[in-house]
Amino acid sequence: MKFSSKIEACELSPIRKFHPYVVAAEAKGRKVLHLNIGQPDIETPKAFFDAVKQFADPVLEYAPSTGVEAYLEAVRDYYAQAVGIRLELGDIMATYGGSEALQIVMACILEDGDEILVPEPFYPNYTTFIGVTGGVVRPIPTEPENGYRFARRERIEPLINRHTRAILVTNPGNPTGTVLSREELRLLADIAKEHGLFLISDEVYREIVYGGEALSSMLEYEDAAENVVVIDSVSKRFSSCGARVGAMISRNKDLMTQAMKICQGRLCAATLDQVGAAALYRFMTPAYCAGVRDEYARRKDAVVEGLQKIPGVRFSRPEGAFYVMATLPVDDTEKLQYFLLEEFEDRGETVMYAPGEGFYGTPGKGRNEIRIAYVTNPAELTRAIELLGLGIEAYNRKNGR
Amino acid sequence: MKFSSKIEACELSPIRKFHPYVVAAEAKGRKVLHLNIGQPDIETPKAFFDAVKQFADPVLEYAPSTGVEAYLEAVRDYYAQAVGIRLELGDIMATYGGSEALQIVMACILEDGDEILVPEPFYPNYTTFIGVTGGVVRPIPTEPENGYRFARRERIEPLINRHTRAILVTNPGNPTGTVLSREELRLLADIAKEHGLFLISDEVYREIVYGGEALSSMLEYEDAAENVVVIDSVSKRFSSCGARVGAMISRNKDLMTQAMKICQGRLCAATLDQVGAAALYRFMTPAYCAGVRDEYARRKDAVVEGLQKIPGVRFSRPEGAFYVMATLPVDDTEKLQYFLLEEFEDRGETVMYAPGEGFYGTPGKGRNEIRIAYVTNPAELTRAIELLGLGIEAYNRKNGR
Repeated sequence: MKFSSKIEACELSPIRKFHPYVVAAEAKGRKVLHLNIGQPDIETPKAFFDAVKQFADPVLEYAPSTGVEAYLEAVRDYYAQAVGIRLELGDIMATYGGSEALQIVMACILEDGDEILVPEPFYPNYTTFIGVTGGVVRPIPTEPENGYRFARRERIEPLINRHTRAILVTNPGNPTGTVLSREELRLLADIAKEHGLFLISDEVYREIVYGGEALSSMLEYEDAAENVVVIDSVSKRFSSCGARVGAMISRNKDLMTQAMKICQGRLCAATLDQVGAAALYRFMTPAYCAGVRDEYARRKDAVVEGLQKIPGVRFSRPEGAFYVMATLPVDDTEKLQYFLLEEFEDRGETVMYAPGEGFYGTPGKGRNEIRIAYVTNPAELTRAIELLGLGIEAYNRKNGR
Repeated sequence: MKFSSKIEACELSPIRKFHPYVVAAEAKGRKVLHLNIGQPDIETPKAFFDAVKQFADPVLEYAPSTGVEAYLEAVRDYYAQAVGIRLELGDIMATYGGSEALQIVMACILEDGDEILVPEPFYPNYTTFIGVTGGVVRPIPTEPENGYRFARRERIEPLINRHTRAILVTNPGNPTGTVLSREELRLLADIAKEHGLFLISDEVYREIVYGGEALSSMLEYEDAAENVVVIDSVSKRFSSCGARVGAMISRNKDLMTQAMKICQGRLCAATLDQVGAAALYRFMTPAYCAGVRDEYARRKDAVVEGLQKIPGVRFSRPEGAFYVMATLPVDDTEKLQYFLLEEFEDRGETVMYAPGEGFYGTPGKGRNEIRIAYVTNPAELTRAIELLGLGIEAYNRKNGR
């Protein structure tokens, strides 16, 4: 039986191939410290569970296709109060996490041979969401030395052609930790407008910024309202990844109408999780957000301090999200990862990260880079980075470097 | 900005256009009885809510991409105990309801110009799931007089060509209420095998059968294991539509590997709902299923009795699910629906159903048919069918028939 050529061109998670080696290392009694997983250990606010427990309807009914009203209102009010943006309920569609919002947008705007500009390195699952539509990622190149900044007219415009349908950005950035400046956001909005492109802005890490800046969103650029689609989610904001409640937000009525076809087709997102998510937004205070941000800042500092101690490692200090890309003084970070799992240990411990190549669309790029997710406590992170340093040393010694 | 031609070819729910008329009728103080909605009013078992309330993890984490282990095990054990089919955990993938299972299967096997055979009338959302892949529904024709039966070799095989990838059936049937016999299931498995087609069997209404037959599944035909994909869900079985927990089940390892790419891409289905769904399967007893089935049987009987009283109405007695297709003695059931909402009332009440045309792939078919969903109590159903009869009479009188 034949499969779709589009799904065949998609790939399984690149991190998956290491799983048997992790199992083998653990079987040898080794502890593997994980810098590869984006699952935060911060407690989910009780407000979520309380709301779910108080749900008293005898029948767990379908939610409306566009979302539970209380959730849509909570998202609207959050944007008004915390981000300073006025939305109508019709601009918001409840989705299964940011993931489904992306799947829906891609299905609405892409088809065979269409191109979408994505600054690399980027979140690898974008490739799947785009690939199943027949669309193609056209990477906007960046350099680690330059902090992966890409929002420059001369870098983006030459990539635009008649197949280009959209620009997709993650801000704050996964995996780069880069936060776009006001000038950069403005420029992206201008380019999208001038070239008639959708500007898809994945803003699920909005609150996690370290520069003291006000919360921002691409939705601020009202003159580009027809172009902008925001992807949002409660996953990172409230450490509630398993709730799978997100939103697709756009003032482009035609886009929302197309999206509605898919929303109606799959009936609705989970009712109870939307009830919980509404409570999370109602519970949210600046103090809560500051607490989460400060906790991530401590973790970032632990990682930065650790990385600075490793000879030859280069990285840009993260401005947001909970990731940092680092360039290591090795030939190939995949090979190093195998070495760390199979041959290396220090006091019974070793470390795992996400090799950089999986975050690039351009073949061969990122081979000496890694992504570190700092979602555990500072002490564990410090030790994990120490292990990384020791592992690099042992690996290069073994290879006669 | 351009949209995908595939999404543009998809349609909004055909029932949507009646919404303003319902609002207008209600504004005039009329009560609209609904025979158009597939949302049962049967209570969701407390087991679901209890399990959700007892969830004590401090962090609502991502579930594994293929599903929460307790849920996968519960599905496996349900198939072993209730249906008599042995499955491995790797044959089962947790999805957002049956809907996402269908979306994933279609994305794995269909691309531009591929065809999928679907007996009509069929569940309209299939068209969206298939349409976004670029695939095309090729309807297997049926006749109302023949109870919409389609599983005959001479009816199916002439439709198979080099573009055909799969046969998709709903059993028990929505909207037809037809239950496939063992001989029909066997024939479908044979045809799929002989022609190298996937056989996608949507079995979400499995327990709701009225003929005293044992539970069945296309998975029984182990010789067609490579062909068969079952779509399942807790929505109807446990009246928990808003949980959005389903499953894609297949012993075809290659298909499951392709599906895994999408599963990993969207990360996971909602954690808490899977915990609740696992509890539903653990709670399930033959007595519970018999109670639900008997309740639907009473409702079916109320509808059947009512329809028999309306002159000129033809229908086949439903064998399963909670729907019946009826052929009405009118020129156009959409026109009748507008009449019922705008002009008709009896003691302040009127009625709404799903016009038949939306369930057909062949243009023009189903124009004098309707789908009735019997998901409310027998007294309300009796009154709704009475209103339908009075409405037909008034409509035909007005039109001089």
